Amino acid sequence: MVPSAGAGTVADAVHEFELIERIIARLRDTARGNGVVLGPGDDAAVLEIPGGHQLVVSTDTLVADRHYPSGACADAIGYRSLAVATSDLAAMGATPAFATVSLTAESLTVNWAERYADGLAAAARDFGIAIVGGNVARGPESVTVTVHGYVPNGAAITRSGAGPGDDVYVTGSLGGAGLALADENLGEWSLVALKDDSPLKRYWMPQPRLQLGIELRGIASAAIDLSDGLSSDLDHLCRASRVGCEVDLDAIPLYPGAAADDAVAMGDDYELAFTAHRDAQDAVDALSREHGVRITRIATLQRDVRPGVSWTRQGEAADVRPGYRHFK
Amino acid sequence: MVPSAGAGTVADAVHEFELIERIIARLRDTARGNGVVLGPGDDAAVLEIPGGHQLVVSTDTLVADRHYPSGACADAIGYRSLAVATSDLAAMGATPAFATVSLTAESLTVNWAERYADGLAAAARDFGIAIVGGNVARGPESVTVTVHGYVPNGAAITRSGAGPGDDVYVTGSLGGAGLALADENLGEWSLVALKDDSPLKRYWMPQPRLQLGIELRGIASAAIDLSDGLSSDLDHLCRASRVGCEVDLDAIPLYPGAAADDAVAMGDDYELAFTAHRDAQDAVDALSREHGVRITRIATLQRDVRPGVSWTRQGEAADVRPGYRHFK
Repeated sequence: MVPSAGAGTVADAVHEFELIERIIARLRDTARGNGVVLGPGDDAAVLEIPGGHQLVVSTDTLVADRHYPSGACADAIGYRSLAVATSDLAAMGATPAFATVSLTAESLTVNWAERYADGLAAAARDFGIAIVGGNVARGPESVTVTVHGYVPNGAAITRSGAGPGDDVYVTGSLGGAGLALADENLGEWSLVALKDDSPLKRYWMPQPRLQLGIELRGIASAAIDLSDGLSSDLDHLCRASRVGCEVDLDAIPLYPGAAADDAVAMGDDYELAFTAHRDAQDAVDALSREHGVRITRIATLQRDVRPGVSWTRQGEAADVRPGYRHFK
Repeated sequence: MVPSAGAGTVADAVHEFELIERIIARLRDTARGNGVVLGPGDDAAVLEIPGGHQLVVSTDTLVADRHYPSGACADAIGYRSLAVATSDLAAMGATPAFATVSLTAESLTVNWAERYADGLAAAARDFGIAIVGGNVARGPESVTVTVHGYVPNGAAITRSGAGPGDDVYVTGSLGGAGLALADENLGEWSLVALKDDSPLKRYWMPQPRLQLGIELRGIASAAIDLSDGLSSDLDHLCRASRVGCEVDLDAIPLYPGAAADDAVAMGDDYELAFTAHRDAQDAVDALSREHGVRITRIATLQRDVRPGVSWTRQGEAADVRPGYRHFK
């Protein structure tokens, strides 16, 4: 598998260590501030940790032909891989800080590697993340990103803090990224070609709800990011909190043109689902206005029901597909 | 690619989330202490950071059929993947603390996943590491580990601190793991079958020089772990420090039965190469005695030479192969 069509010729192929140097050069500007004492290029990175804060860590892998089309543009892969991982920080209410990135590919040209690093650097700047280290190895194409952020001691928002009576909210709209999957040229888009607010941009450049996540500290009782699909992800939150709820498909905020059945079963939107005590409704509304982000109340959590989510459509029980699963 | 021969039948295959639950159950005991506030199972892990310390972070990927034989025993893969990543902490003089692990495989059975987690847990206990999170995805088999440790503020040992006149040392002996590569059944060994001090155990269960690395803080001027081979790795250290040295192949401490040419060009031993001011020789000797670890002085760094390593054999210039490269 060659990482990308049109990504340079064999004549571009260079020695591994030079390749790493070239990638690091493109990422160097991101590795300033954020407590970086020692960035890429040594055995490990060294970071200063702010006092009074806890570290928040999450890791995600994207595999070519599974999580994105094989042969996709390198810059789009770079951007999306960091965005997807960073969304977990948003769900925890963490302030993004730094990340390591491991890339495997069967062959690598300078052109491909530099475009990949450019996409990664663009996402790093957008999300305020320093790329502090990584790894390059030969193998089937995949990218693993480990992201790190901070929360004030004890302020992390988990999946398990929801209680009966809390309201369930969803940010933004669902189903946009799923529409992009129908584009048969999905793998041919580079970042600069993506139009604002198009489903393709939603897919390749998801925007984790970082600022909203930070401001939900102390308001949300639980949160999860929507990577696999609301049907699976909200179910995880409910089971972790040992509560249940009934959600009507008509209550789901939809991306224009998306169908509710698809929107709740398909992932990749990287919106947040969160819960909050009913007294917090004014605070939630204020956040929505302040950030210009639609926040929709879709359900209320119940005690004395089976933990998890039951789906209805106009009050009648509805079948909903589970979200994305790797191993069925 | 099925993760391992004999690793259970299709009847064992279970739902992805149950599989993750089973893996987490095997790792739960490791995720205690070490400042773990929230372990695996949420969007991210949460960690307390000790005051007066800096965080040290490194990531490594092992790809099946490239870094280890395809079809290898799951527990051996689990152990080795954590050991290899942790060796970078030893080179920095860091105290190990926690790690995240991302596994991709084309199919996963309960049996394979549990054995893999058992190997990972064994290494985690041996090295004092909490496994705090991870990811499981379908794809060609590979493991990416991101390890984290701590050093007192400013105490990290880097590759770039060596100066002219410093002595160059190597821990233990080289070439043992390389001998294991000649074993045509290398992929069929599980952890319990490995005999102490055999080349096979060196390969599957490398023991990062963690305690030695910690005690080298303030003694070593620079250090690097030997993953790709001394010829490449010492060259990296010298170039990072802008110094050069001449190393005689006869000075290399060899694993019984290993040839010097192979021992310096093959990686996988995960010993340390480090440098220290000549006044530190007594301190180095004391560490060697105290830990029962052979530490061999192999060269002295010179100014006014081309940065990097020149090789000799009995005083005559010698050709030495570079260490392992993914992209040539």
